[in-house]
Amino acid sequence: MSPRDAQATKARILRTAVVEFAQHGYSGGRIERIARDGETNVRMIYAYFGNKDGLFDAALTSAIQSMAAAVPPRPEDLPAWAGDLFDYHQREPAALRINMWAQLERPQAASEPLESYLAKISALADVGAPPLTVVDLLVLIYAMSQAWYLTPVGLLKADGSDPEDPERIKAHRQAVVAAVTRFAGPS
Amino acid sequence: MSPRDAQATKARILRTAVVEFAQHGYSGGRIERIARDGETNVRMIYAYFGNKDGLFDAALTSAIQSMAAAVPPRPEDLPAWAGDLFDYHQREPAALRINMWAQLERPQAASEPLESYLAKISALADVGAPPLTVVDLLVLIYAMSQAWYLTPVGLLKADGSDPEDPERIKAHRQAVVAAVTRFAGPS
Repeated sequence: MSPRDAQATKARILRTAVVEFAQHGYSGGRIERIARDGETNVRMIYAYFGNKDGLFDAALTSAIQSMAAAVPPRPEDLPAWAGDLFDYHQREPAALRINMWAQLERPQAASEPLESYLAKISALADVGAPPLTVVDLLVLIYAMSQAWYLTPVGLLKADGSDPEDPERIKAHRQAVVAAVTRFAGPS
Repeated sequence: MSPRDAQATKARILRTAVVEFAQHGYSGGRIERIARDGETNVRMIYAYFGNKDGLFDAALTSAIQSMAAAVPPRPEDLPAWAGDLFDYHQREPAALRINMWAQLERPQAASEPLESYLAKISALADVGAPPLTVVDLLVLIYAMSQAWYLTPVGLLKADGSDPEDPERIKAHRQAVVAAVTRFAGPS
């Protein structure tokens, strides 16, 4: 295989692994299914990623990096960035799902500061101020942008509204942006 | 079995099921282990809860209700309530874990407005104001209070601090309370 083919195969395996692990998690994810859907074989996957741990961790890192690349921090407008993140989760639920599985099943994954984490800290260095450090700000803005997708449907509809209604989702997006404006908006 | 014994057995099964499902999730949770740890048998569990779905849903509901009872909404001081929730998650991680598993594996669980959801909506009826409805407020405050526990460790330590350090955790708790004060505090 040429180096270029090898790169393409590796990238295809990773994309397939993100889909598989986002759907079924670490324990439930199946290497055989990734091999089949990625049009390769199990031996090739092990050659590239070592074992299931290595493949899961690479898939998680890849999902985190894709998200960081698609919606980079906007230090000059954090509320707008929160809106971008909200839209990203709606468009690409895999990133959030694989991260949740990792927290539950494999918290040691992504436990080292990745390049993309360090880049975010550095991009926002000027907006952190006591008692909110840059990490606190990041943690809270991420949480607010993904909150809708982590809330039991029974709570979302407890006021009688329909959480599947696009207008309701749009209104929640506005609420997220408004809340971030109030606590971290341009002063 | 007397009615009192039956109630005690059922409560013991539920407590054991919360522990098992919080640890292993819906797919990974084992009825046999719940029977053993709950000092009962599989036949009794099915008699009370029907099947694994019924037991999981009852365990999730029980965890949600325990949390609602332990840290009821404080409409007069939402920032303090966010701090209470943060402390609860640190003390009782099972509630958050079983909710995450449910979102990933069984989103149809707790999809009906439970009594405890309706009670919260009603308790906070006076604090919602456009563009943040009561549900938006609840969703965001819950998210902020649990954000620390859902963030990859690699991000938490990307600024060089130690996320296991009790002082760091206390500082994050202060950041949560400060952020909620800014966006939903007493005006």
